This record gives sequence, C-alpha cells and structure tokens, in this order.
Amino acid sequence: MPLNEAQIEEIIDRALAEDLGIGDITTEALIHGKRRGTGLIVVKREGILAGIGVAKQVFHRVDQNLKVEILLEDGSRVKLGNKVAKVAGNVASILKAERVALNFLQRLSGVASETGRYVEGVEGLPVRIMDTRKTTPSLRDLEKYAVRVGGGENHRMNLGDGILIKDNHLAVLRRQGLSIKEIVARARQSAPQRLKVEVEVRTVPEALEAAEAGADIIMLDNMNLEDMRKAVKSVHGRALIEASGGITLDNVRAVAETGVNFISIGALTHSAKALDISLELEAE
Amino acid sequence: MPLNEAQIEEIIDRALAEDLGIGDITTEALIHGKRRGTGLIVVKREGILAGIGVAKQVFHRVDQNLKVEILLEDGSRVKLGNKVAKVAGNVASILKAERVALNFLQRLSGVASETGRYVEGVEGLPVRIMDTRKTTPSLRDLEKYAVRVGGGENHRMNLGDGILIKDNHLAVLRRQGLSIKEIVARARQSAPQRLKVEVEVRTVPEALEAAEAGADIIMLDNMNLEDMRKAVKSVHGRALIEASGGITLDNVRAVAETGVNFISIGALTHSAKALDISLELEAE
Amino acid sequence: MPLNEAQIEEIIDRALAEDLGIGDITTEALIHGKRRGTGLIVVKREGILAGIGVAKQVFHRVDQNLKVEILLEDGSRVKLGNKVAKVAGNVASILKAERVALNFLQRLSGVASETGRYVEGVEGLPVRIMDTRKTTPSLRDLEKYAVRVGGGENHRMNLGDGILIKDNHLAVLRRQGLSIKEIVARARQSAPQRLKVEVEVRTVPEALEAAEAGADIIMLDNMNLEDMRKAVKSVHGRALIEASGGITLDNVRAVAETGVNFISIGALTHSAKALDISLELEAE
Amino acid sequence: MPLNEAQIEEIIDRALAEDLGIGDITTEALIHGKRRGTGLIVVKREGILAGIGVAKQVFHRVDQNLKVEILLEDGSRVKLGNKVAKVAGNVASILKAERVALNFLQRLSGVASETGRYVEGVEGLPVRIMDTRKTTPSLRDLEKYAVRVGGGENHRMNLGDGILIKDNHLAVLRRQGLSIKEIVARARQSAPQRLKVEVEVRTVPEALEAAEAGADIIMLDNMNLEDMRKAVKSVHGRALIEASGGITLDNVRAVAETGVNFISIGALTHSAKALDISLELEAE
Amino acid sequence: MPLNEAQIEEIIDRALAEDLGIGDITTEALIHGKRRGTGLIVVKREGILAGIGVAKQVFHRVDQNLKVEILLEDGSRVKLGNKVAKVAGNVASILKAERVALNFLQRLSGVASETGRYVEGVEGLPVRIMDTRKTTPSLRDLEKYAVRVGGGENHRMNLGDGILIKDNHLAVLRRQGLSIKEIVARARQSAPQRLKVEVEVRTVPEALEAAEAGADIIMLDNMNLEDMRKAVKSVHGRALIEASGGITLDNVRAVAETGVNFISIGALTHSAKALDISLELEAE
Amino acid sequence: MPLNEAQIEEIIDRALAEDLGIGDITTEALIHGKRRGTGLIVVKREGILAGIGVAKQVFHRVDQNLKVEILLEDGSRVKLGNKVAKVAGNVASILKAERVALNFLQRLSGVASETGRYVEGVEGLPVRIMDTRKTTPSLRDLEKYAVRVGGGENHRMNLGDGILIKDNHLAVLRRQGLSIKEIVARARQSAPQRLKVEVEVRTVPEALEAAEAGADIIMLDNMNLEDMRKAVKSVHGRALIEASGGITLDNVRAVAETGVNFISIGALTHSAKALDISLELEAE
Repeated sequence: MPLNEAQIEEIIDRALAEDLGIGDITTEALIHGKRRGTGLIVVKREGILAGIGVAKQVFHRVDQNLKVEILLEDGSRVKLGNKVAKVAGNVASILKAERVALNFLQRLSGVASETGRYVEGVEGLPVRIMDTRKTTPSLRDLEKYAVRVGGGENHRMNLGDGILIKDNHLAVLRRQGLSIKEIVARARQSAPQRLKVEVEVRTVPEALEAAEAGADIIMLDNMNLEDMRKAVKSVHGRALIEASGGITLDNVRAVAETGVNFISIGALTHSAKALDISLELEAE
Repeated sequence: MPLNEAQIEEIIDRALAEDLGIGDITTEALIHGKRRGTGLIVVKREGILAGIGVAKQVFHRVDQNLKVEILLEDGSRVKLGNKVAKVAGNVASILKAERVALNFLQRLSGVASETGRYVEGVEGLPVRIMDTRKTTPSLRDLEKYAVRVGGGENHRMNLGDGILIKDNHLAVLRRQGLSIKEIVARARQSAPQRLKVEVEVRTVPEALEAAEAGADIIMLDNMNLEDMRKAVKSVHGRALIEASGGITLDNVRAVAETGVNFISIGALTHSAKALDISLELEAE
Repeated sequence: MPLNEAQIEEIIDRALAEDLGIGDITTEALIHGKRRGTGLIVVKREGILAGIGVAKQVFHRVDQNLKVEILLEDGSRVKLGNKVAKVAGNVASILKAERVALNFLQRLSGVASETGRYVEGVEGLPVRIMDTRKTTPSLRDLEKYAVRVGGGENHRMNLGDGILIKDNHLAVLRRQGLSIKEIVARARQSAPQRLKVEVEVRTVPEALEAAEAGADIIMLDNMNLEDMRKAVKSVHGRALIEASGGITLDNVRAVAETGVNFISIGALTHSAKALDISLELEAE
Repeated sequence: MPLNEAQIEEIIDRALAEDLGIGDITTEALIHGKRRGTGLIVVKREGILAGIGVAKQVFHRVDQNLKVEILLEDGSRVKLGNKVAKVAGNVASILKAERVALNFLQRLSGVASETGRYVEGVEGLPVRIMDTRKTTPSLRDLEKYAVRVGGGENHRMNLGDGILIKDNHLAVLRRQGLSIKEIVARARQSAPQRLKVEVEVRTVPEALEAAEAGADIIMLDNMNLEDMRKAVKSVHGRALIEASGGITLDNVRAVAETGVNFISIGALTHSAKALDISLELEAE
Repeated sequence: MPLNEAQIEEIIDRALAEDLGIGDITTEALIHGKRRGTGLIVVKREGILAGIGVAKQVFHRVDQNLKVEILLEDGSRVKLGNKVAKVAGNVASILKAERVALNFLQRLSGVASETGRYVEGVEGLPVRIMDTRKTTPSLRDLEKYAVRVGGGENHRMNLGDGILIKDNHLAVLRRQGLSIKEIVARARQSAPQRLKVEVEVRTVPEALEAAEAGADIIMLDNMNLEDMRKAVKSVHGRALIEASGGITLDNVRAVAETGVNFISIGALTHSAKALDISLELEAE
Repeated sequence: MPLNEAQIEEIIDRALAEDLGIGDITTEALIHGKRRGTGLIVVKREGILAGIGVAKQVFHRVDQNLKVEILLEDGSRVKLGNKVAKVAGNVASILKAERVALNFLQRLSGVASETGRYVEGVEGLPVRIMDTRKTTPSLRDLEKYAVRVGGGENHRMNLGDGILIKDNHLAVLRRQGLSIKEIVARARQSAPQRLKVEVEVRTVPEALEAAEAGADIIMLDNMNLEDMRKAVKSVHGRALIEASGGITLDNVRAVAETGVNFISIGALTHSAKALDISLELEAE
C-alpha cells in the first residue's frame, strides 16, 4: 500500500476511540460474543474506489483475527452492487469496526471519484488536475492519496515543501513598493534552490512579468478564459501555468483548452460527496 | 465556548503539524519576521457560521500574541462580504495559521449551513433534524457541534451511548429465529436502563410490533411516504419515530409532514460542501 | 473481549513506560537474557476476576512471543489458590510485564468484587446496582467494564451521553426562580430527545413534582429509608427511581427494599480495595 | 508545585476527554453560557489533603479564565466542612471541570490520608513508611507524590531506578544452584554502582547471609514479629532493613518496634479509599 | 520565532518527561520550594548560537512564571564567557529545566557551529552548503533549523517533498535495463511537476547524460575533484550540480572551487559536537 | 532485546512520520510497487555495533512482511565491509525504511563506539566509564543503552532516580551559610533512603569533608590529576569517587590511574560521531 501503516494506524485508533466509547453496547446486549459471520462491503453509487486498504486495517485493528479479503483494489471504477471486500469472523468485531471502516472508505472514495470526474472532463488534453491544501484537518495525507488514486496530482503537501507566493504575500510586499519581478527574484535568491518558485497573479501583464522574472510556475487566480489564453500565449513556455479558482465540472474542459499545464481545485477535497458504500452482514 | 479547549487543542496541533512541515518557507524567504499586519476573515457564500472559536484557537496556538477579534458568533447567518473576525499581529504568524484556521472554519460552517437548509425545509413542523455517525474520522465532536449550531440535534455520539438495533443486528438475530418483539424485549432487559431503546424497521407491521414490544424510538429505514404515514398512525404515540435513508432537501418537508418526530441525515456531515471563506491580509 | 484492543493498548503502553523506565535493571544484571520459564497467576483472596484479557495484552505488549493461557475468564468467582493464567516464555519478559499486568488485574478485580458484594446484597430484589462518574482518571472505561463484570450496570459514561440535572444545576436554576417542574420541562425541550431525562431531588414532594413534570428517572439524593419508600409510592411508576448517597453494604438491602429501581454507588470505583493476586515464577 | 506541569497536563487532558465526551449536554441545555458563579470545594471526611494543585490545573485546562483560590495547601490535615478552594467564573466551565477535578483530589487525598494513618501509627519510632510499585496504571507519579504528602517515603519509581532482587528472581537463580550470597555478589558487580542493592528474604538465616554478602537493604517478606526482631539483631546495622507484606494499621506499630528501618505497604496506593470531597456551587 | 511553538512544545514535553521522572528529588530534599534566584546561561566555546528560543520555551514549560531574558539571538557568533540568557524566578524550577534546556541549546548550537565552519570555508564562492536527511530521529526540524541558522541551506525535509533518484533506485532500475536518460525521463513524467528532479551519478558521462535528459539537479556522489570539474564543464549550466560524500573541512573549499552549486554534508547533523554551554545559578 | 518494544515503537513511529511525509514519491514514481529485492546493511568504519534491533523494528514497522536477518548482534566490534543485517522483501518498503533505520543505527553505534574507545583506554584498571544526562532529547533511553553496549555504565537516568548535589545546589545552599557537611547530612536525612547520596566537590578538603559527612559517592569536578590522587587518598575508601569534566581520550587513562572509581563523560552521548553504515540494495 502506498501509505505508511504506522502513521495511518494512529489515525485509525483515534477514529475508533471516537466511535466506540465504552464499546458497542447494543451488540453486547443482543449478540453472543462468539457468534461468527461474514460481512460484504457493497458499493451503492458509481465512482472510484479509494481507501480499501485503510478499511482493512480498521477491521484488523479492532480484531486481528478477522479475515479480510479485498475483492477490488483502490482505483477500481465501481458501480451499484459491486462487492469490494469480504470480512469474515466474529460478528461483534465486524459490527464494532463497520462504521469507522466505512467512514474512511466513503470519504476517500468520494474524493477519488470527484477527482476522477474532473480528470475525465479533460481527457485527451495535456493538463493535470491538482488538489490544494484545503483538506480535512488530520486527513491530509489520506485525502491527497485519494486524489492520486482518482488520477489527480498533488500540489504542495504543506507550507514547507514548496514556494508559493500568494495574494497575501503580494499584498504585504507591494506595500513595501516591490514589483512582482523583484519579489520573484528575492524568492529565487532566498528560498531553497532545490524547489521551484511559484507565484500567483491576477492579470496577463503580471503573468508576463513573473515569467520574465524567472518564476517556474505561474498560478492564474480566478482569471477568465480569454485572459488565460493570453497569459499562456505571452508566457510562451517559459514557465508552467496553473489555473486556480472557480473551476467546476462545467468549465474545466474549457479551462484546459486554454493551454494551461495544471488546474487546481479545492473542491476535490473540501466538498467531495461521500461515495455511498455499505456493509451487509450474514451470520453463520 | 461549548467545546472543550483541551480536546480541540490536540486536533489543532495535529492539523498544524500536517500543514506546516518545516514551516512556511515562502513567508520566511520573503517577509520580514517582525512585519505586522491585520487579516480579515471574510465570507464568500451564504450560510451559517460555525467554528469561529476553533479558528481563533488555531491563531493563538501558532502565536499567542495574535489579537483575534470575533465579529460574528457561531450560529450567525452570513452572506458574501460578511466579516467574521479580525486578526492582528505578526504577519508571518497570520500566514502560518491561515489555511488551518480556514480549513476548520469552512468545513464546520459547511456542516452548519447544510443542516440549516434542512432545518429551514421543515420550518414550522414538529420535527427535529438529526445527524448520524457518518462523520469525518477524528472530527466527530466538532462536526456534531456544527450540526447543533445549524439547528440540528445529535443522534448517538458513539456506539457506547445509545441502544440502536440496526439491520445487521436484526439479520443476525432473525437467523436465530427471534422476532422483533423478542429482540426489543431482550434489549430492554440487558441494556443499561438509563438509555432508550431504538430499533430500525422496514415495514409498517414491524413498526407496530416494535411499538408493542416497548421500543422507545422506531427508525423507519428507507420507507416511502405512504408507509411512513401508516407507521406513524399505527404506532400512535407509543414511541418516537425517526425517518432515515434517502432524505434530500427536495423531500425533507414531505417526510416531516408524515408526522415522524426525527429525520436523520448522513449527508449533513459526510457530504456537506465547505462554506467558502477567506482571509484578506493588509500589512501595516 | 468486550473492550477495544486499540484503545487499551495505549493505556497499557503508558503503564509500561511508567513502570519500566530504562528497563528492568535487576533482571538484566542477574538473569540470562535467554532464560525461559513459566509464571502462574494465582489469586490470594476471594472475589470476582476482571481484567485477565488486559493482563494478557500487557504480557504480549512486552514480548509477543510469550504464550499466555487463560485458565479462568472474567466474571469467575475466585478464591485463595485459584490459578487464573499461565505465562510461558522468556523469563526477563515475564518479570518486566509482571507488575503492570498485576496492577491492572488487581484493581479491576477489586472493582468487580466490590460490585459483586453489593449485587449479592440485593439478590432476589428487582433493583440494579450502578456505578457513577467517580472513577480513576484515565481508567474509566476499564473500571466501568469491571462493574459490568461484577454484575452491576453502568450509569453515564461521560457528561455527553446522558441528561442528569444535579444539585449544582438546581442551585443555579432555582436562583433564577425556576421550579423543578419548569427545569425538567426545559430539559425535555432542549436536550437530545433520544436521551432520558434524570433529575436529582432531596425531598418527597420534589420527587413527585419531577415525576409529574415528565422526568424519566428521579435520583433520590441521600434520602432516608422512610422518605425513599414515600417517594417510590408517590411517583407510582411514572418514572424510574435511583437511590444515591450514603449506600453501604450494611444498608444496601434495606434501600433496595424501598422499591427503588437503581442504587448508584461511587465507592464501587473510587474506594474498592485491590484483589490480592500474584505471579509465581518457575524457571525451566 | 512539586510535580511537573507539562507531564500532568497530559494526564488531565486524557481525564477530561474521558469525562466530557461531546461536552456537558445537561448544562448546555439548561444554563445560560454566560452565567457566572462560585464553587466552594469542601471536605466531608477527616484526612490529609493532596492534589489541590492538580485540581486547580484541571479548572484552568477547561477554562483559563476561571479564578481558582487555594485556601488549604497539600499536606493540610482537614476535616468535615473545611473549605479547600474557591473557584469563580463561568458556571458551565466550573461544572465541566468539577468531576475530574474532584476525582483527582479525592483519590490523591485518599492516598495521602491512608499514608498519614500509618505514619501516625509509628509516631516517635525511627522508621519510615514506604509505598510500592502497586500503583494505579498511569497515575504512579501522582500517587507517589501523595504518599510523600502523607508523610511517607517513596520506594522504587520504576524497574530502572533501583536494584531489588525479589522472590521470582531468587526462584530462577536458585534453580541454577546459586546461594543468596552469590546472587548479591553478582548484583553488586553487574548492576550500576550508583544504586543500592536490595534483596528480599524470607528467613533469619537468609537475612544474615544477605547482610554478609554486602546487601545495602534487606527486605523481610511476610516475616512474623519474632523473626523480624531476630533478623534486625543478626544483621546488626550492616544493612538497612525493610518489612513488607501483611502490614495493617493494627500491626504496623508492632512491626516498627522490631527495629526495622522501613515498612512498605502496597495498600497505600492500591486500596486507599477516596477522601470524600465535594463542590458546592453558588450562582451570582 | 521561525519554528512552530505547538510542534516544539510536544518535543520539549517528551524531553522533560524523560529527564524529570518523578521530579528533581535532590532539589526537593535540599532547597526550599519558594527560594528564588537567577541563572545565567554562559557559553564555554566558540561557535554559533542556535536554539535559544527552544531553551526559553523549556523554562516556561516547567514554570510559566520564570522570567527569561534573551541576551543573544540565534545566529550570534559566540565565544567563551558570552552570556546568552538570564533566567530569574523559582530556583527549583530553574534547576528542573536546566539540563533539558541546555541539551537542546548545546546540540542545536553544535549543528549551527559546524555548519558555520563549512560556510566560512567556502566564503566568497558561489556555492551553498546543504544538509541531508541524516538527522537525529525526532529532531529533524530543529536540526534543519540549526543548519539554516549556521548559514546553510536545507536539502529535502522528507521523502515526500522532493524527487531524488539515488544509487539504490538506479541499482533497481538498471537491472531492468533502463539508462539514466530513460530513468530521468520517467521521473519527469510520473512525479509531481511542481518539484525539481534530482539524480545521483558517479561518473562524468552519467552527469552529462542526466543533464541531457533534463534533470534539474545532478548530485555527484563521491567524485574526485578532477571529475567534478569535468562534470561541471560538461553539464554547462543545464542543471544545478551538488557535490556529496567525503566532504570535510579540509577539502570543502577545493570542492567548491570546482564550480558545483551545492555541497551536501551529512556530518552537519549526524556528527556535530555539542557546543559547551552551561548555566550558573545565583540564589537571592 | 534489552529495550522495551512498546516504548521504542513510539519513537520509531515519530521518526518515520518525520522522514516519510506523504511517502516516498521518488520510489513511487519510478519503481513498481511489487518489485522485490534484498538490502545489505554494511559497515563503513571501525566501531561497535548498537541498535540493530531498533533498525529491524523500523523495517517491520514500515512493512511487517519484510524479512530481516540479523547477522551481527549489538556489541559486535565491526569494521569496513562487515555485513550486519540482510533485509528482503518489497523494494519500496526497504527504501522507505532505509534512512530512518540507518539514522538510529549510525547514531547508536556512534555512541557505543565512542564509549568503547574510552573503555579500551582504561583497560585493566578498576574503573568504570559512565555517561551523563547530556543526551539527545527524546533518545535518552536508547543512548544510555548504547553506552552499556559499548561497555560503559549508566549514571542517573533522570532527576528522579538519584541524589546528586551539584555546583548549583551548593551555590544556593552555601549562600544560606551551610557547609558541605551540613548539606550532605540534610540530604541523607530528607532524601529517599534507598538511594545513595552523591555530591560534587572542587577541592581536596571538600572531598574529605564530604566523605566524613557520609556521602556515598563524591564527584571531583574538573580537578587536576594531582588533586584527584590526593582526594582518593584522603577519602580512603569511605566513599566511591567519580571524576568528571574535561576528560578526553588523551587523558582518560591518567585519570583512571589516580584511583577514582568512575569517570563520567558527557561527550559519550552529546558529541559522538555517527558510525558510517549504509544499505546496499539489489533487486531481484
């Protein structure tokens, strides 16, 4: 699995603690502690599966004797009725783990599915769909993983792994009388050389100025299609170009057709609907 | 503030660790460490505000010398342009905290706003909108708080604080030949007396049987409007009734008009869109 | 096991860290690192066993190669000389885990045994023995589990899973001029509907007023036997009744005979004596 | 305060998380969020106070604006009616913190009080009352602190800070044919020189042998008074002597009069009754 | 301060827990709990100061009433006798915090000083001294911060924030028959576009091949000076060049003079000697 | 293994989190997720191996299916080319774990090797080489373990497990007019009896005074050889003697020959160079 088990274990443990409280009192009251059965995890909507490995880990964290068979791997396109995994063993354990396992699986699959819709929307065009730092607190790595599963690419993981000069930086620096050119130059000089320098601009002339100043990536913030096309043209390959802000499934293809290299979309992680997935239990 | 600071601090710290990495290298490279300024937190869409206290705590956790003035309290109905808080102090600190503060605020306000839309949809009717356990791993308490802010009521916090006999329990118990009546009776006997007993049913006769067996709450799972009305009628006040499954903004009022006491909706927490909120910085 | 392994593992790890420091320097200095042996866990006093699963987990957390055979399950009535488990493997590992394993086992068995004495004291009467929130910081779930093992029932797990209007609430609300009736009504209206409303009263008329106001449970605080009887009579089944305060093994049966439904006792968890249990090692 | 705030904060945070769940729903439902008042912490039984600093920290951890005035310091002898602290501020905050603050205070005062009773029992004799490692998991440092407050002295904090050759070590080593003399010699050689070597013995000749082998401290395990006297005599000051096992308030003075230097008692921490202490709230 | 307080607090708390155990028993035994005094932190060797903010935080974490006055900021060149800070307040608190505060300060100043020596060694040349991922487990961010304080630049923070194709990757990929050119091309295609691609080479032809394949940075691994010069010449500015392996203070200038852009040195963090710094206490 | 797995697991997890970030993006981009291979851990410099068990645990924490074969145990004297372990399995997992495993192994082996050099320097003399509390924050137990592996002995683990009256204590107490004799007497009286009392002195008369006052251990701080000899002579076996301060490989034998019992050296842990060790990967 592409994610580190030790790190995810901690997130899972917190989620279980949150969901279990003193334990599953309903199951304790009603079902014999030794009863065995099998749960099928079944998809209820069309989408892209992500997080099945995390779900498996949840079951094992509750009871390492549960036998989890993965039937569909992350990245699979799924639809109503698809069985993605089978969990066999103690019924009480399956019921304890059910909600947390599904909560991870539904959310991550939701993110992957939403990403997949955007990726599909730009099919055939030389552009990459990217996420942002607008992720759920404490789930960043998992959500960024789901974006990759959905065919997207990750933008910065955190503030420490990339230079991105944003509107608020520019607001401060311009007040000191600095031009975009001077700002980019300063960043190239002071920031770690191993990193590319990206700058956010709002107009075509700013994009040109940034390119001339040697920016590696230029983010066009909330620009209209016409201006994006002009920006692409005037930058003329001297820098990579990222479109950001106001992107929807309706306009993503048009944005891509302007010739930008990346399209970044906060909604991939902050507003994706969960993919409906459930567990159906059968006792032995 | 209705949430416990100590508990939230831990969630905030994890979110900051996740977002900061080694620190904000862009700001370090460009902006003088002593520069001061003011950030305004501004709403971009209509909705209900939730999480402003958490956002404030984020700023203080990064730098306790930041001065955060809350202009609108949680629960306020907000729209484009509303200023919800003002943060003054060290510019680098404001920029470090910005994304994490907004990530909390946008998500919680998204949940509160979505809840608010459902609550509004049933205005004037004697029914309560409830959440479920389909929450984001590690954010349950915060999201359930946001549901309350939005006018909703909380269903079970975790498996340990309520008896809810669900389809998977019934599947197991029926295989042993037990009727709903026997199952409810067993729950009333074995489970803690201080808790109400809720049972999920799929048909009107089952609802009736549950009521006669002394269930305190009966959950009608994915029932059509006609059957809901019948169930309400035949239960005749002997138990509270909850509708669940397939509820949307389009049908919520019709569901409420069947006479059910609660309507529970997973989408309040698992599929709410973030409310768009941003921070605008002005340097001194 | 009725408790969640992942949650308990964290408590065990803290207890081990606390007890091991740099490690068991005595054993390191004296006993060959590969020496093997068998430890018998033996009971020294009469009581009810609780926590054997936790003890087993302690041994495995120190050394997963230890072979732990459980001879008596939680809930067993034990007496001097009973062997409850056998631990075989590396001697140094057994000695490292010994104290922590016994500390859990002795305390939890102490709580279960104390609970058992009260349960026995009311044998044959239709009353339940309950715990309180007066538990050891960080061991609440385990101690409440031990209460259940001892035949008791759990009162609220935490402030968030039940409505209990206590003397201090009443003190504040009465100062605003509210009657018990108004207070109960307000609670029924504002608190989550899925929860029962309990209120603490000190006199028979208050109990009656609470019942009429629709309280689900009425707690009689430190009332004498005569008044308890009167309260039971005047409430007349409209609410469940809980006796609390000043309960001892000497008076518990008399209290039960007044007809109350529950008797809650803080001493089950805050003042139970540990059950004496030891580990006897035999080297190979 | 003699304990490290940072370490205790973590224990407090866990205890609060455990007790608060989603928050205090009763108080939220009934009492206005801005209501202010004053709580008096009042003692209900005779004993020695310990943990008032921890209790104060609990209140501050819930709400740093609470004003906590300590009226009686740790170590004070208290009795029914004594006021030990006054907490003023937000009523909801006081109620949220109440139970956890009292749980710490009652337990630690219980340990200090029990210790105090033993210390009093040997008043005037040149002997010290010591605790053991039989402490509550995760509360060791606090309980050992309470022992000191009660006038006792701490035995080993953990396995890594002292050499104590116990019965189980002897069982293993004797099977290899080693005498106590050889075992003590080996410990003196292999263990850190900065630490004293203590050995547990069961007979007078073993005590003598241990003294001659150069043990610094000799623990007499479950020995009768007569043998203790003989052991003290034959060791004749060459080592310190500790009595352990079966000590009660009834026999502690007799044990002390045998001339031993220490008496160690597991019950100080594993079986102390909580000291009854409560909080009385008065709204403004 | 350039580091995030919340993150560092956790590291400090662990370090304090590790150093305090039950608390400072020597000080408790000897010094009155209310005694006040002043400690001067004094440098004993020449070097560059780093970590004074962390040291300050340690004192405050132990006792927030200590008054810490910083006399010399991080980055100051210091020598024997320089006073870097003054700590005033409770003597017991100062003594509790002393060792941990100094442990941080000595190590970080050691790293900064070692870095400074290398930076000085290449003074006037257009080259940057960089660290590696060979840092102390759990102190990476702090040590990388110290490198910056010493005038160095940070290489990758972690495996997730940069593409660096190392010898072990090449070993695997070559076995599949891939050339460096193909490997670099694959990396440019599959890895996040926002990141530069760096590749490690051992010969001049490999360096040339990497440059032609479009690598952004080429690391010359353990190359001799002659080859480095040739590599710089043949790459001819198409990529940045990093020298790595076998760099010492004796050869660093010669390496720099070959024209490489970076020199990375594991010893900055894995083998720096602590800078000798002590605290001198004066009681009032 | 002499260290507790549960405790070390936590340190390893933090180190992995620190090094992995989102995961190993280079390997993900280039190497097939199912590729298998074998890594050899090879020593590059002469020294003493320590931490191979920790390294093994790192590999297993990243991927429990990796097969780690330990070829040389901790304590082995190693030199260039020695193979210490073999790791077989998934290539991506090996690469993820590599740096963290080596960082632990290099540092601990560095400490053991440095200790070994001092131990060798005093070979044949009746003296023990000891460490100090000048360890790396959060690695104390591991570093102290490495000291033992290198043949050294551990001084205090923390402030709570030994009485050591240092210069700063004396500075405070002398200001009250107390003599060393009075100070030692007070410590013997107030501190736990189970612990030895050590005191730091700077002159021969102070050493004599301390011995007469009954100190168990006397630390000679930065004394010259001549004075050390005199101190040894005048103490005349009444106390153990420890030399501290200014010890190097050049003078350690001369110091030992003065007759002191211990030599404590901060540099063992605060300034040991890492032992150069690498992993060489071969794909299948």
